[in-house]
Amino acid sequence: MNAMSHKLSPLFDAKTLVIVGASQNYERTGGIPVNTALRLGFGPDRLALVNPRYREIEGFPCHPDIASLPFTPDLAVLAVRASETLQTLRAAHAKGIPAAVLFASGFAEEHTEQGEALQREVVEFARETGMVISGPNCLGHANFSTQLFATFLKGFETPQPAGPVGVIAQSGNMAAIFMVMGARAGLGYSCFANTGNEACVEFSEYLEYLADDPGTKAVLGYVEQLRDGPRFLATAARMREQAKPLFLLKVGDSEKAAEAAASHTAAMAGNAIVYKAALRQAGAAVGGDPGQIIDLARLWRTGRRPAGLRTCIVSVSGAGCAILSDRFAEAGLEIPTLPAEVQTKLAALLPSYGMWTNPVDLTGQVTNDLSFFTAALNALLETDALDCIVFYIMGYLLDLVAPALIEAAGRTGKLLVAIDPTGAERVAELEAAGVAVLPEIGQTARALGGYLDWAARSHKPAWVPVPHAPLSTAPYRTLNEAEAKSFLKRYGLPVVEERIATTADEAAAMAAELGCPVVVKILSADILHKTEVGGVRLDLKTPEAAREAFVIVTESARKALPAARIEGVTVQQQVSEGVGMLLGVTRDPVFGPVLTAGLGGVLTELYQDISLRLLPINRDIACEMLLELKAHPLLTGFRGAKPADEEALIDVMLKLSDMVMQAGSALRDVEINPVLVRPNGQGAVIVDALISAQI
Amino acid sequence: MNAMSHKLSPLFDAKTLVIVGASQNYERTGGIPVNTALRLGFGPDRLALVNPRYREIEGFPCHPDIASLPFTPDLAVLAVRASETLQTLRAAHAKGIPAAVLFASGFAEEHTEQGEALQREVVEFARETGMVISGPNCLGHANFSTQLFATFLKGFETPQPAGPVGVIAQSGNMAAIFMVMGARAGLGYSCFANTGNEACVEFSEYLEYLADDPGTKAVLGYVEQLRDGPRFLATAARMREQAKPLFLLKVGDSEKAAEAAASHTAAMAGNAIVYKAALRQAGAAVGGDPGQIIDLARLWRTGRRPAGLRTCIVSVSGAGCAILSDRFAEAGLEIPTLPAEVQTKLAALLPSYGMWTNPVDLTGQVTNDLSFFTAALNALLETDALDCIVFYIMGYLLDLVAPALIEAAGRTGKLLVAIDPTGAERVAELEAAGVAVLPEIGQTARALGGYLDWAARSHKPAWVPVPHAPLSTAPYRTLNEAEAKSFLKRYGLPVVEERIATTADEAAAMAAELGCPVVVKILSADILHKTEVGGVRLDLKTPEAAREAFVIVTESARKALPAARIEGVTVQQQVSEGVGMLLGVTRDPVFGPVLTAGLGGVLTELYQDISLRLLPINRDIACEMLLELKAHPLLTGFRGAKPADEEALIDVMLKLSDMVMQAGSALRDVEINPVLVRPNGQGAVIVDALISAQI
Repeated sequence: MNAMSHKLSPLFDAKTLVIVGASQNYERTGGIPVNTALRLGFGPDRLALVNPRYREIEGFPCHPDIASLPFTPDLAVLAVRASETLQTLRAAHAKGIPAAVLFASGFAEEHTEQGEALQREVVEFARETGMVISGPNCLGHANFSTQLFATFLKGFETPQPAGPVGVIAQSGNMAAIFMVMGARAGLGYSCFANTGNEACVEFSEYLEYLADDPGTKAVLGYVEQLRDGPRFLATAARMREQAKPLFLLKVGDSEKAAEAAASHTAAMAGNAIVYKAALRQAGAAVGGDPGQIIDLARLWRTGRRPAGLRTCIVSVSGAGCAILSDRFAEAGLEIPTLPAEVQTKLAALLPSYGMWTNPVDLTGQVTNDLSFFTAALNALLETDALDCIVFYIMGYLLDLVAPALIEAAGRTGKLLVAIDPTGAERVAELEAAGVAVLPEIGQTARALGGYLDWAARSHKPAWVPVPHAPLSTAPYRTLNEAEAKSFLKRYGLPVVEERIATTADEAAAMAAELGCPVVVKILSADILHKTEVGGVRLDLKTPEAAREAFVIVTESARKALPAARIEGVTVQQQVSEGVGMLLGVTRDPVFGPVLTAGLGGVLTELYQDISLRLLPINRDIACEMLLELKAHPLLTGFRGAKPADEEALIDVMLKLSDMVMQAGSALRDVEINPVLVRPNGQGAVIVDALISAQI
Repeated sequence: MNAMSHKLSPLFDAKTLVIVGASQNYERTGGIPVNTALRLGFGPDRLALVNPRYREIEGFPCHPDIASLPFTPDLAVLAVRASETLQTLRAAHAKGIPAAVLFASGFAEEHTEQGEALQREVVEFARETGMVISGPNCLGHANFSTQLFATFLKGFETPQPAGPVGVIAQSGNMAAIFMVMGARAGLGYSCFANTGNEACVEFSEYLEYLADDPGTKAVLGYVEQLRDGPRFLATAARMREQAKPLFLLKVGDSEKAAEAAASHTAAMAGNAIVYKAALRQAGAAVGGDPGQIIDLARLWRTGRRPAGLRTCIVSVSGAGCAILSDRFAEAGLEIPTLPAEVQTKLAALLPSYGMWTNPVDLTGQVTNDLSFFTAALNALLETDALDCIVFYIMGYLLDLVAPALIEAAGRTGKLLVAIDPTGAERVAELEAAGVAVLPEIGQTARALGGYLDWAARSHKPAWVPVPHAPLSTAPYRTLNEAEAKSFLKRYGLPVVEERIATTADEAAAMAAELGCPVVVKILSADILHKTEVGGVRLDLKTPEAAREAFVIVTESARKALPAARIEGVTVQQQVSEGVGMLLGVTRDPVFGPVLTAGLGGVLTELYQDISLRLLPINRDIACEMLLELKAHPLLTGFRGAKPADEEALIDVMLKLSDMVMQAGSALRDVEINPVLVRPNGQGAVIVDALISAQI
């Protein structure tokens, strides 16, 4: 990257460094980077050491302070105590050093007043001076192309070949684990950074640097929380444009993890479900443990990015075929039955007890005749009906077929994966040729499911994030049902015909006007759950019944919630047939407005059968959301029911998205529950809604 | 095991063997066992070779036929073609050899008439002669205590230390993979067998042998289908009594896997959901891939079998804590907040930015002070509130704390597990001391979830299988709704009050008699889905409404299904309030009657939220079944609803179980849908039921 082209260039593109608090104990944070730089052959032109206690370390001159350095380094590495941080930063700035990395803990992560005050001072100093300051409480960062390791992570004492993968981790431990596991997997790295407390530089700014760094072709990250959601989304979108994958490990699914992350980073882990939906929508692949992230990178390294999930399973055993089928189906892969012409070719090759539909069981015959493997492989390579072929073949046999696989990899764009449970010898050759080799079935299934899902999405039109007006500081109020519906109506959303009645007689008259059956519901902005207070009467077949209902619901509601201000009742047309769906818009503190879709009713909560997207959405996203629901078959006509008007529901979703974008900060959140999706051609109608807004 | 004490003793306890079709090509099925036996130093007193083409192999005498052998071996290993099998078996029998293993394929697995005929002849021969015949189409078997390897699996050419683990696999490839992966994990084996086509000996008989074998302390298995469910259940129960674990890899969750298994073993893989429920109920742990089965064995090998799932996560990083929390929660582990006194002890040890609630974040301080690790460990060992402690600690640090862990393992019954993503040096020492070391988080979560679930179940009262009367060959008929309900009533099950009406006037009269509101439903054994044909009218508030309903439902049903014999309508009390549950009993071809419980309604099918058990069940099992349902909170009072009478529902389940046991083969299946579980204290009532029976 061109020096100084990005805010973080002073950190990552530094050629020279000073280590303040340099130590000759190479087990200490002040000693490790000294050892690394000396072992890599840094001379006094690139490296300076500062520690008043030493004159030299291994014969390398050590200076008493920054002021007395013979040159101005690009970067100051501060291995000093928290309490010495500010004075050291001032000295560095006075010397003209533009960037610093702070190793010390003892800042905001301690949750002490002193630590927080200290961190505020660092932030203030950075703002005033324009110095780029990474950390504190971090492991540092490194740039493999310049071999500058501003970190107390060990293991870089021998020259590291630079590679295409960048790493950003909101945990020093995860940064370390990524580096170690990735090195074992043969991944090469461009840069890494542990972001620490992110006092002055936050996760997405590191990401921005890597997004623009031409040496970085993919980014692996560990995320607990994002401090700047919009910046993240914009950066992820830029990475998507460049086809730079972003593979993120995100925690916080469980309460305990959220607790751990909160304790760890002095910040809430946020709503895990929203995070996952947002990261995915932004074009990232999300994994659940470091091994999975490394596996995604291994699959990406093959250079193959299929547009679909159509996978062929090839084994020499029926059992292998069956096990992979189960695990792959569970991981969301498609295992299509092979086209007839491919089956014909395979059937001609295989013994009668083989399988050729997909999975393909080559049987033990492979051992006796390799040309037979090559012929079967060719048949699979030739068809357009597959995106990926997975070979589950024991170690020695994998070695036997390796030349055929290597040759095949040279002439196909399909993703080729071998699962090697028993240790083949030719793994490195296979990997060099672009065949991914993974050791274990469960692990492969999860990695492949995540990778093919990511790859397929990367071929679809990108979602473009739109900046949202922030919430206003003025208070929002809950609209009553009638107000909420007229709000929706204003934006073109279809709401049920209804009237407001403030007396029993009015209720009866309105029932007659609307036509029975009608529904009578209590009208009060103070009552969120009308049914629970006896505030709803359904299926009122006569105006007289509506009159009675007025009395019943107002009395029930008064009894249940004496403090609620009751504004009357709504009398609504009863829409009987249809699938009741829920649509909600909430404001996520990180990502802004989020749309949730699910089936109406209590079971949605129990089964957690919901689909989320950041707004705005388009038609494709709305379709995807509905397809993701396990309850989706209810819309298409389940068990002999009429298909529902899904198009009308999609239209409601799009109008809701537009409404939120147009209303801006005046609207906080919306819950439509239910929108009744009527039989095909009859539209959808919103029966009830809650809105919190400023009107 | 004492020779001849079990039907399969002639196979497994053989001391001497003859290899028929012996080859000097050690890559061939006839050569591999020769090589193995010669390398293990078998002399002419234990080994005989037969092949008319050779006089000797490596100087070892080779005989032209079985008749001319100088002694009578215990076991004949047949490495001959399918077509030569019978004549060879006859010769072996004539020589007095009691057992044989058949390697050859070319039998029923080929799905050819010839192959099937050949297999029938082998079965017939075994029946007539009493010879114990394993296979055909199998890899053979081995007994590590006698070092007799009647198999063409390679890798046993050096003496194998006998160990506690037995393996039975319905796939040669899986047998091989278990052996290789297990050896890598340091498991020692007692016996293994690949069952092949199971022409004469089926899976459960092999299992019986291992259940009774004192050298076998645990069994790993790969199952596609069981040919004798009752024998399996009885054997599994015996293993449970002896606390011998049974860890089974079962395939067939997905359609594709079922297809693959069917093609592979010439038999249906069966209902995967029933299999999983049955295997678990029988006391086994079920895994989804070979790695998972090996991991279960590694955890078992620690000698710790906790009674609960209460797990403490210990890491030196908040990120590690968070990741493990997510993955462990997903895998069903409990991560309880630590008791206050333990927290107090830990808090005194840890820096302020550590965590001590569980997960426990020791922070990087461990590196500086090991005594601190030991003190924290002691605090965790002392509490009774934990069953298992998992350490996620980087390689070099794990080496550092290994002595403390090893010492701890010697004085605690808790399960101690270390996850080592980066390769520690002291893994072998840790494992020898009873600390399980696994390499990867996702893998550990799955293995630990399965293991602790199994271990906890092994401490509970065992389920005792009861033999069931098989279905009769006489036809079963579907009872109409009224007959079905009186069937249920006879066995003491609570059914809704109802009358049968054959005219509209009768319907009105009965409505008056029962008291309104009532429900009117079409009565016809030919109509299974009454609602779908417009055959149900609810909430009839007057006798007049019931009269009208009679006309409407009979006309609708006639129109929808003109061929259905309509026997009238039932007029039922309308039970309004309650949770509608479904209870079904079906007959599984392998395991007999199976009870399914779930929420009534279409969503249960979409969300697959059901719980299954083999019958009979007891009260504990009934409770477990309901607790397993995601919909269970609906019974305990969800979102302000009244709690339902769960006790009454359990009572219905137990009576249903008794009914099935008592009715025996007269009853085929039952579907109660719904049983309405009314508010607590008000009981449960069966509103509708379908029964297929002989009455």
